[in-house]
Amino acid sequence: MKANVTVTLKRGVLDPQGKAIGHALEGLGFDGIGEVRQGKLIEVELAETDRAKAEAALDEMCRKLLANTVIEDYRIEIAE
Amino acid sequence: MKANVTVTLKRGVLDPQGKAIGHALEGLGFDGIGEVRQGKLIEVELAETDRAKAEAALDEMCRKLLANTVIEDYRIEIAE
Repeated sequence: MKANVTVTLKRGVLDPQGKAIGHALEGLGFDGIGEVRQGKLIEVELAETDRAKAEAALDEMCRKLLANTVIEDYRIEIAE
Repeated sequence: MKANVTVTLKRGVLDPQGKAIGHALEGLGFDGIGEVRQGKLIEVELAETDRAKAEAALDEMCRKLLANTVIEDYRIEIAE
């Protein structure tokens, strides 16, 4: 089973990397760029075949390692 | 208009960061972890309201700045 985990900064948390990308895009001549925010995408392959168990395991992985839940949100999508 | 751009390493390109995450998950006691790969997620807000034009602009942004197309693939999703 494959899963995609996306980890993004919570609204209100400063994102200097996103700001830098926004400025670089403007510097390249792109107009109308609003807020830019950068997050992480983690693709995980699991041996688990039960969808519910896989989701529970991924949720635990996010809380223990993949996301810093003080400043980050995470979203789990089971791909197949 | 909001768009999500995901940038991932092409298949076959070594991903040491993903490997490190995989090993860390195993070290935390998670079983059945297969390949782990890490990519980037970039959320962009655009003033452009025309979907086709926005997609064209985002494609150009990816090729010029957001992705290194030699080793990375990118995917554009218009969110709203």
